[in-house]
Amino acid sequence: MSDHVYKHIELTGTSSESVEAAVNGAVARAGQTVRNMRWFEVSELRGHIEGGQVTQWQVTVKIGFTLED
Amino acid sequence: MSDHVYKHIELTGTSSESVEAAVNGAVARAGQTVRNMRWFEVSELRGHIEGGQVTQWQVTVKIGFTLED
Amino acid sequence: MSDHVYKHIELTGTSSESVEAAVNGAVARAGQTVRNMRWFEVSELRGHIEGGQVTQWQVTVKIGFTLED
Amino acid sequence: MSDHVYKHIELTGTSSESVEAAVNGAVARAGQTVRNMRWFEVSELRGHIEGGQVTQWQVTVKIGFTLED
Amino acid sequence: MSDHVYKHIELTGTSSESVEAAVNGAVARAGQTVRNMRWFEVSELRGHIEGGQVTQWQVTVKIGFTLED
Amino acid sequence: MSDHVYKHIELTGTSSESVEAAVNGAVARAGQTVRNMRWFEVSELRGHIEGGQVTQWQVTVKIGFTLED
Amino acid sequence: MSDHVYKHIELTGTSSESVEAAVNGAVARAGQTVRNMRWFEVSELRGHIEGGQVTQWQVTVKIGFTLED
Amino acid sequence: MSDHVYKHIELTGTSSESVEAAVNGAVARAGQTVRNMRWFEVSELRGHIEGGQVTQWQVTVKIGFTLED
Amino acid sequence: MSDHVYKHIELTGTSSESVEAAVNGAVARAGQTVRNMRWFEVSELRGHIEGGQVTQWQVTVKIGFTLED
Amino acid sequence: MSDHVYKHIELTGTSSESVEAAVNGAVARAGQTVRNMRWFEVSELRGHIEGGQVTQWQVTVKIGFTLED
Amino acid sequence: MSDHVYKHIELTGTSSESVEAAVNGAVARAGQTVRNMRWFEVSELRGHIEGGQVTQWQVTVKIGFTLED
Amino acid sequence: MSDHVYKHIELTGTSSESVEAAVNGAVARAGQTVRNMRWFEVSELRGHIEGGQVTQWQVTVKIGFTLED
Repeated sequence: MSDHVYKHIELTGTSSESVEAAVNGAVARAGQTVRNMRWFEVSELRGHIEGGQVTQWQVTVKIGFTLED
Repeated sequence: MSDHVYKHIELTGTSSESVEAAVNGAVARAGQTVRNMRWFEVSELRGHIEGGQVTQWQVTVKIGFTLED
Repeated sequence: MSDHVYKHIELTGTSSESVEAAVNGAVARAGQTVRNMRWFEVSELRGHIEGGQVTQWQVTVKIGFTLED
Repeated sequence: MSDHVYKHIELTGTSSESVEAAVNGAVARAGQTVRNMRWFEVSELRGHIEGGQVTQWQVTVKIGFTLED
Repeated sequence: MSDHVYKHIELTGTSSESVEAAVNGAVARAGQTVRNMRWFEVSELRGHIEGGQVTQWQVTVKIGFTLED
Repeated sequence: MSDHVYKHIELTGTSSESVEAAVNGAVARAGQTVRNMRWFEVSELRGHIEGGQVTQWQVTVKIGFTLED
Repeated sequence: MSDHVYKHIELTGTSSESVEAAVNGAVARAGQTVRNMRWFEVSELRGHIEGGQVTQWQVTVKIGFTLED
Repeated sequence: MSDHVYKHIELTGTSSESVEAAVNGAVARAGQTVRNMRWFEVSELRGHIEGGQVTQWQVTVKIGFTLED
Repeated sequence: MSDHVYKHIELTGTSSESVEAAVNGAVARAGQTVRNMRWFEVSELRGHIEGGQVTQWQVTVKIGFTLED
Repeated sequence: MSDHVYKHIELTGTSSESVEAAVNGAVARAGQTVRNMRWFEVSELRGHIEGGQVTQWQVTVKIGFTLED
Repeated sequence: MSDHVYKHIELTGTSSESVEAAVNGAVARAGQTVRNMRWFEVSELRGHIEGGQVTQWQVTVKIGFTLED
Repeated sequence: MSDHVYKHIELTGTSSESVEAAVNGAVARAGQTVRNMRWFEVSELRGHIEGGQVTQWQVTVKIGFTLED
């Protein structure tokens, strides 16, 4: 196991469908500018209510990725 | 953005199906007595086990709603 | 309500599908060696990313079960 | 286990005698206006000091009760 | 010091001016329906940004008040 | 002070009487299978309500014990 | 309500009897050197186990007192 | 409500005047390089003392902004 | 940067005016007996309500100061 | 990445030398009865003082290991 | 003390040797792209176990640096 | 085990060498004015960066000592 350094970024993904879809959205968006993502950790789980119903899941994740040497 | 005041209530929704269904149940029940709900935040995620299987998801949410003037 | 004593164990279940499946996996595995499981509480929600996508949900749960007299 | 929704309220009970008496006082008072209380959780344990002695135990509890359909 | 029971409610006050004004707004609004308020505790301090500037302070407070016998 | 290793287990003791009795119950039950217990730490203090009264104190403790070499 | 300044000190009281006795012991000892104590808050609840039994309750409290002008 | 992804950055603003000015400074500086800022959340409130007086307020904020598609 | 040791003390300052004034009051009072104060950190933000209005801000701060050799 | 289940155990390792040695001691002791250990996480860092000097580092770690199918 | 704005980034450094070496590695790597680093704060201390031994220390740090005007 | 009362003080030790040396420094300095120190607990682990390198470890510890009767 070589001694890499990892960086963390924090994003909030959103979805009208599910917690999982919100996380997938955040990871997909991060992948447009970051390579070598390795793990995520959910730090907050919130949502939007409209007309008496949950209309959006908002999931905040920390994403860790390997910094290239 | 006008200067509203929001109130928070805390409920636990339950579902045999999923985390999302448990939250939806809590929000739907709250909507019977509260208007103008705006957001929720999950504060606890627990469940019941029976016969060696998860039989109920129990999700505690704080719900915020606008207080009318 | 008789005065039982409960023990807690902590496990991480994993699934490529969903948060719920990861918890179900942890509970099913625990049931191979522990009887009388009663509840669980999620203490951490993480996951693995590969090729720019979430490939595994990793959900850490505390499971409580009744100790027999 | 049917899929109820539970509501939480937070109170501080006080007693010159003990932690338990302070909780009992909070639960008894809540019972004047709330039915179907099911559990409590202590979130803060404080007290008042006068004349160099503890004169009051102040115990903050969250009480959960079943919302009727 | 007689053994009262106190109830807590949680509100978010908002103001375009300051933290203090947001708290004052929450307390004033609560006072329309609650008597005998005694203390508050700030649990969250957030705000809204628009056009690159803070346009609203959002302060969440728990307010404690004496329940009458 | 020799360099021992200690293990922690987590249990919930219950009692209809008091916080102390609930802890004593957990420690006594743990002592049936664990030797050399050294300390405990309360991590959660909850209870059951029935008929508008506290009928059970539920105290979760971490217990530390010396692992024999 | 005049604008006093309060100082906090943290002590651990111990007792073979109860949580309350341990707090009382800490407050009594603090009173030997500090005047105008006003409140306490429990920050940790631990204990010692010997011979398979709880032999000492160890309760850590923060004590607040008025600083004289 | 379309399904955006938001990114969070953390900054510490400083001011010799007030908490609000320190936050305003952090948001203004962030706006030099980030567009579409939406909200902030205070995570730490510290300060510098010199000559026995507070000479600087240091407020750490998380700022959330919309990532463009 | 020489290797000093710093001590922390915790105080609650109060003010009828503002959060900043309450902190200033605590720091000024501490300066009557402590030299070489270097920083503070707010750990709690509470207040007193009377007649339906905030009459006192109560801000708890940890103050760090250099111990002289 | 196959869908394993992991179990966590918590131990306190001790050493008169260093934090690292205390962790190494806990992991070595755990390895006498547990196979397939994968990671650890430090949850508490304490120590013993005697004669005015640190005589023992006490590091509490959670250790995760793969449960075999 | 002029009113700078500081930014925080979070990284995980790794080392087979020690906690300090892991932090040094993270700081050194950050210094390749960031100037004016001022402080760090450890937020998580974990590690990897292989063959029953700690093979890697993983230390997560928040690093603060001055933003140039 | 007689029923002593313990007091806690909080200090930050610093060292250019290691975490352990910073703690040792804090304990040694405390021992100039306090007798009967018994244990410490690390509550914060920070450091100073200069010229792109860690130049100082800053470790905050709570130290507990027995109060004489």
